[in-house]
Amino acid sequence: MFEIIPIKGGINAPQGFYADGVSAGLKPPLSNGKNALDVAFIYSEEPLKPFTLFTSNAFEAAPITHFKHYVQGKKSNFVLINTKNANAMTGQRGVQDVCEILDSLKARFDFVQNPIMASTGVIGQYLPKEKIINAFGGFEIFAKDEYAHARAADAIRTTDAFSKEIALRVNLSNGESFCIGAMAKGAGMICPALATMLCFITTDALLPEDAGERILRECVKHSFNAISVDGDMSTNDSVFLFANGRSGAYDEQAFKEALSIVMHKLAMDMVADGEGASKLVAFEVCGAQDEAEAIKAAKALANSLLVKTALFGGDPNWGRIASTIGASGVKCAYESLSIAFDNIVVFDRGEICFDEEREALAAKVMQKESFKVSCDLGIGEGKFVAYGCDLGHEYVKINADYRS
Amino acid sequence: MFEIIPIKGGINAPQGFYADGVSAGLKPPLSNGKNALDVAFIYSEEPLKPFTLFTSNAFEAAPITHFKHYVQGKKSNFVLINTKNANAMTGQRGVQDVCEILDSLKARFDFVQNPIMASTGVIGQYLPKEKIINAFGGFEIFAKDEYAHARAADAIRTTDAFSKEIALRVNLSNGESFCIGAMAKGAGMICPALATMLCFITTDALLPEDAGERILRECVKHSFNAISVDGDMSTNDSVFLFANGRSGAYDEQAFKEALSIVMHKLAMDMVADGEGASKLVAFEVCGAQDEAEAIKAAKALANSLLVKTALFGGDPNWGRIASTIGASGVKCAYESLSIAFDNIVVFDRGEICFDEEREALAAKVMQKESFKVSCDLGIGEGKFVAYGCDLGHEYVKINADYRS
Repeated sequence: MFEIIPIKGGINAPQGFYADGVSAGLKPPLSNGKNALDVAFIYSEEPLKPFTLFTSNAFEAAPITHFKHYVQGKKSNFVLINTKNANAMTGQRGVQDVCEILDSLKARFDFVQNPIMASTGVIGQYLPKEKIINAFGGFEIFAKDEYAHARAADAIRTTDAFSKEIALRVNLSNGESFCIGAMAKGAGMICPALATMLCFITTDALLPEDAGERILRECVKHSFNAISVDGDMSTNDSVFLFANGRSGAYDEQAFKEALSIVMHKLAMDMVADGEGASKLVAFEVCGAQDEAEAIKAAKALANSLLVKTALFGGDPNWGRIASTIGASGVKCAYESLSIAFDNIVVFDRGEICFDEEREALAAKVMQKESFKVSCDLGIGEGKFVAYGCDLGHEYVKINADYRS
Repeated sequence: MFEIIPIKGGINAPQGFYADGVSAGLKPPLSNGKNALDVAFIYSEEPLKPFTLFTSNAFEAAPITHFKHYVQGKKSNFVLINTKNANAMTGQRGVQDVCEILDSLKARFDFVQNPIMASTGVIGQYLPKEKIINAFGGFEIFAKDEYAHARAADAIRTTDAFSKEIALRVNLSNGESFCIGAMAKGAGMICPALATMLCFITTDALLPEDAGERILRECVKHSFNAISVDGDMSTNDSVFLFANGRSGAYDEQAFKEALSIVMHKLAMDMVADGEGASKLVAFEVCGAQDEAEAIKAAKALANSLLVKTALFGGDPNWGRIASTIGASGVKCAYESLSIAFDNIVVFDRGEICFDEEREALAAKVMQKESFKVSCDLGIGEGKFVAYGCDLGHEYVKINADYRS
């Protein structure tokens, strides 16, 4: 038995981690004249080998190439993060830029070991090296006041409307406890295969080295890999999990549950903050031949433009849902299919039950900020829930105007 | 040698075919108070076995099920087409409705043999049988004035902004000639695997029975299966080709070229008329490992929301193009990739050549109503061109408001 309690402190909640955010002048000043935060760092007292998951995009960004080439397998105690520029499609020069920036960092802070860089923003431009290096002068690494975690989470935002962070304490039945803290950035380009998202997780749990990646993968499957804003997949997606064992406490079941809460929360924040999104929708597919088929159908729904615009219009257009399932390539049959909006069934094993009353009820469900679209394929045991949002005028506006 | 000449007459241009459109009251009256056309027919003097291609959506609409069950393999001389209601997701009752409507048709017109029905419109509602049957009173099947083909093409529109039809005469070097005529409806839900589109083609060429389907498939690959408006795939997609041999003329190469012009023209009309589209873009991928990989990459570009919104915004955002290629799962490498907008190269085998001058030139290309985005993967001989459009506010408006 264990209990999981939300706490303050974001990514700085676990012992031994120091994250903060500063301004390097990469973002324009805020409307109130203050400088916007755009560079963050995470310092770990103890050098650690992070557990990582990276984009499957063939053109991985330079910081990821740098990590794989220079850091992977070594212990690191520092992560440097910048926004507004993804350092992607920049080739060897992009990797060289990372090396130069991190060499400057090591020259200034001699305790920094095998630093890691992560970037997000526009693809296809070289990093503004000088601006980033100049920002090191503002790093007060050990200061860590109570707002430092919030500044760090703020600094990694691009088109995100709000910061995304969380911290949990897990109390085990033997009286021991550990913490997990995390921050992430999402918005736009979020798709069911790790997309423009950066996620940094810290914990003082005594996580065994052979368990970290396995648990991370399991939690990603139902969180970041289950969400879609626009079906695109970015060059920079990365998840880093740092575990320093300081608490001396660990329990696999408790850790896994807490980590999945952390990642699910951040993933839901990303969908809710999807560019221009106004509704968060869970697409629940069950009765599929197997889990792979359920994933395929659920993601097809979350990615369908016609479904997303119907969600935006508040139209319980179950015909588009059915058509999308039919087009997804999964095994299905007319006679066994059922479709519901929350608990309002509109199509029941081959029978249309969409009278005026049910249409009104289903339309009411769709007025909610968050609801569920369920499809029971009725032919097997496979199930999966994907999360998506509507697509409205704001999405078009943001993406027609913003170069990313 | 042969020559291909555009002619008048649309689907009625070849000898022996009689198409027309009437109003059955399925669409609301026009703003000028006149009745909108919404039911069309095609009568062929000679009963024919049509060459057909149908949707790959698992939930094929009732008219398609009806055709496969009752007509396929038999000679038919009549096609009845209605808009506003797709008769999809309507199960056995939907098929029964088709039978009843066509029985009424045969009772009224005793020369009708094995009639075919095709429908397009809202999914998940039963057909307004009475309205359609009542419309038979307005059928003047043999009248065929010079506007009949245009009324037919008008009557099959749903959200199409304009009618889509074409007719060609092919003059062979031996002095013989044949005609091809066609009409289609598209708009919305158009995707690279046959989508909400109906296409009817007539010809008096002496097309051999063993060649029709093969040639139809080849032409579809580079026309209807190469276009995307929103990546969705409908329940009702159908292509019918009727050949009566009346001209006594045939040449495979000439027929194939003429048919590909016909289908390419109609496909381009569909993209240009994609819901809310303002730009027609050819996504040309070459240098792929093989054709399958080129198709995959080109269709990924035509379907990417981030690419489509950048097109709408007129932003030569080559980073999104690269990222989409990288995410598409095709074999590619940074060092061999090149990207161009028309002839303006912005990324040349791993080198960013996107200075201010080229950006201005590329932005100018994107102001055009029609242009080309080229990606050379530089690793093989595979090539393919997919066609797509931008996605703007109009798309959202149409699809948030319209139930289809």
